[in-house]
Amino acid sequence: MSFHELPTPTLLLEKEKLMANIARMQASADRLGVKLRPHLKTLKAAKAAEALIASGASGVTVSTLKEAEYFLGHDIKNITYAVGMVPAKLADVADLMARGADIKIMTDCLEVAQAIAAEADKDGTAYKVLIEIDCGDNRGGLRPGSDEALLIADIIDKSNAYFEGVLTHAGHSYGVNSRSAIEKIAEQERDSVVQTATRLRAAGYEVNTVSVGSTPTGLHAKDLSGVTELRAGVYTVFDMDQQSRGVCEIKDIALSVLTSVIGHNKAAGKILLDAGGLALSKDRGADKFRPEVGYGQVCNSSGIAIPGLYVTSVSQEHGHVAIRSENDFKLLPVGSRLRILPIHACMTAAAYDYFNMIENGVVCEKWSRVNGW
Amino acid sequence: MSFHELPTPTLLLEKEKLMANIARMQASADRLGVKLRPHLKTLKAAKAAEALIASGASGVTVSTLKEAEYFLGHDIKNITYAVGMVPAKLADVADLMARGADIKIMTDCLEVAQAIAAEADKDGTAYKVLIEIDCGDNRGGLRPGSDEALLIADIIDKSNAYFEGVLTHAGHSYGVNSRSAIEKIAEQERDSVVQTATRLRAAGYEVNTVSVGSTPTGLHAKDLSGVTELRAGVYTVFDMDQQSRGVCEIKDIALSVLTSVIGHNKAAGKILLDAGGLALSKDRGADKFRPEVGYGQVCNSSGIAIPGLYVTSVSQEHGHVAIRSENDFKLLPVGSRLRILPIHACMTAAAYDYFNMIENGVVCEKWSRVNGW
Repeated sequence: MSFHELPTPTLLLEKEKLMANIARMQASADRLGVKLRPHLKTLKAAKAAEALIASGASGVTVSTLKEAEYFLGHDIKNITYAVGMVPAKLADVADLMARGADIKIMTDCLEVAQAIAAEADKDGTAYKVLIEIDCGDNRGGLRPGSDEALLIADIIDKSNAYFEGVLTHAGHSYGVNSRSAIEKIAEQERDSVVQTATRLRAAGYEVNTVSVGSTPTGLHAKDLSGVTELRAGVYTVFDMDQQSRGVCEIKDIALSVLTSVIGHNKAAGKILLDAGGLALSKDRGADKFRPEVGYGQVCNSSGIAIPGLYVTSVSQEHGHVAIRSENDFKLLPVGSRLRILPIHACMTAAAYDYFNMIENGVVCEKWSRVNGW
Repeated sequence: MSFHELPTPTLLLEKEKLMANIARMQASADRLGVKLRPHLKTLKAAKAAEALIASGASGVTVSTLKEAEYFLGHDIKNITYAVGMVPAKLADVADLMARGADIKIMTDCLEVAQAIAAEADKDGTAYKVLIEIDCGDNRGGLRPGSDEALLIADIIDKSNAYFEGVLTHAGHSYGVNSRSAIEKIAEQERDSVVQTATRLRAAGYEVNTVSVGSTPTGLHAKDLSGVTELRAGVYTVFDMDQQSRGVCEIKDIALSVLTSVIGHNKAAGKILLDAGGLALSKDRGADKFRPEVGYGQVCNSSGIAIPGLYVTSVSQEHGHVAIRSENDFKLLPVGSRLRILPIHACMTAAAYDYFNMIENGVVCEKWSRVNGW
């Protein structure tokens, strides 16, 4: 089936670009001498996880326990749930472990560590626990090398739970757009967990996992000495957010939304699309470096970017494209089809239950994905 | 089941508030002497449509053909698809009509009208066609009373298709925050379709439907003479976007996201939630009048707003709440539960497959909804 016949809006994933992106990050991990544990929060698709593992990935990272359950259901067992644990979710983790998952959980909180230890001692579940470190992103995590890391390791170590190691995420690497700035943050990311692991080891704790990761730092780190694994996700498909930061080129973006032109508002100088805020997401992540890109880069139906045409505003089911000149109305008649390169692939993909996998302009497969919680 | 036991994040819908909101808009439509055709793009739930129809609604409005198919599957047949038609979608509309749907479609484009007429003449399907009018929102629609409206009516009227009337949406009513400004836009909205209908009737066309609608104008219009029906959707649950414009009060907001505190970043002065950009959406619609609200108003687990606490930033699965003082860490320990009032209910609800319906603090039912395209 030609993708030109698909009902719109729908999600296209170009398989060749996906596989090239997968190979690129795997090569980076290999070069740096670390395992790669891709973050499946972007693709949330078993077929994608299988392709990643076939290319050398050691396991997967997930952002929800629903993803963990879904991947376990597809026989992918080596899973890190990289969002802070709360006691109420432990029963679900224990259930996944009982069903065969080798799942690692994470906290930066003494009280949660105590709850994990208590549960482990009560039911014998050997929860594997990572300590989250904040390397500068100011989201979750303890400050590098902090005393609390020792206290958490101690609480876990004395219980039936298992102290696994340390993890950080350089989310602030999305806030810069030069190679040298990314390299600097990659070193900060590395140092934050390595110094914490060193302190933990000096205090007698075994630290098996020293985990870092983000797409920019994963591609541009110069050295990951002391690190055991790299996590990243959006590199698999890239998006305009990453393009705006110089982390990828337009040609690397594997994900797009196929849309129809549904109207011309000549008085307002706008072309209207059937891909709006739900089909594209309302993420404005490219604003910092490329505000003109708005809600997405407009491409022709073959995926070639049309210079100067962007989704300038959205309502729920309408994308608005400010024309460059009246000629755009002739170029893009009502009923014609376009592709939109998303601002933030993880957010855009979450509106869809599957990817139309495109190979040589044809829908070769549908890859289902899991959403929600 | 108490909703306190639900896994987080999850979506709560308070039934009493919902029913009060439904009654309020129905009373407004009754007062104005028009039918109410609620926009189900917000709730996308058959149970909600049934409650609306039981309260007096004449039919439903939808934003996707998937919604139309879903509602038809629940025996709701009187449907207006209020997004611009494209020829490629006509076969699906014909299929819905063949299965019993009384579906109205819409265009503002001569070429689409010609395609509808050609299809109607080819297969005998009596597509019911509305002409979209732009009353000032600058999205879809012809200018009020324009010559093109006459041309479209003529094309449809001469074919097997059926010319149904005119429709407009005062989306720009979301851009103001005073009662008098809303009243003025409501009059502009009314006038745009009534003057077009008058011109069409003068030219000999029957105009059965003269449709207007938005939540602000539906609640605050002083007069809808000449209008036959009102469409609105977000009033069923309201949100912080509507609250920021003075259209509802916090106590009217029926929809919230139940979330857990998953971390304290003491150095950064942040409380972290497991409701992030996917669970809340990245809509920033309240920015114009209440930028401090960010991605949502924080409430305690009973739904009482906590003054000064907002979701100040989000990543995919993390909501960040800037603390007011260190005391917030004591007030909201890791593992405790909060509710977030969404910025834009339509966008937030789209991340979930169902609503947990809450009555007297208990989950009384789950209402399934349809998403995607």
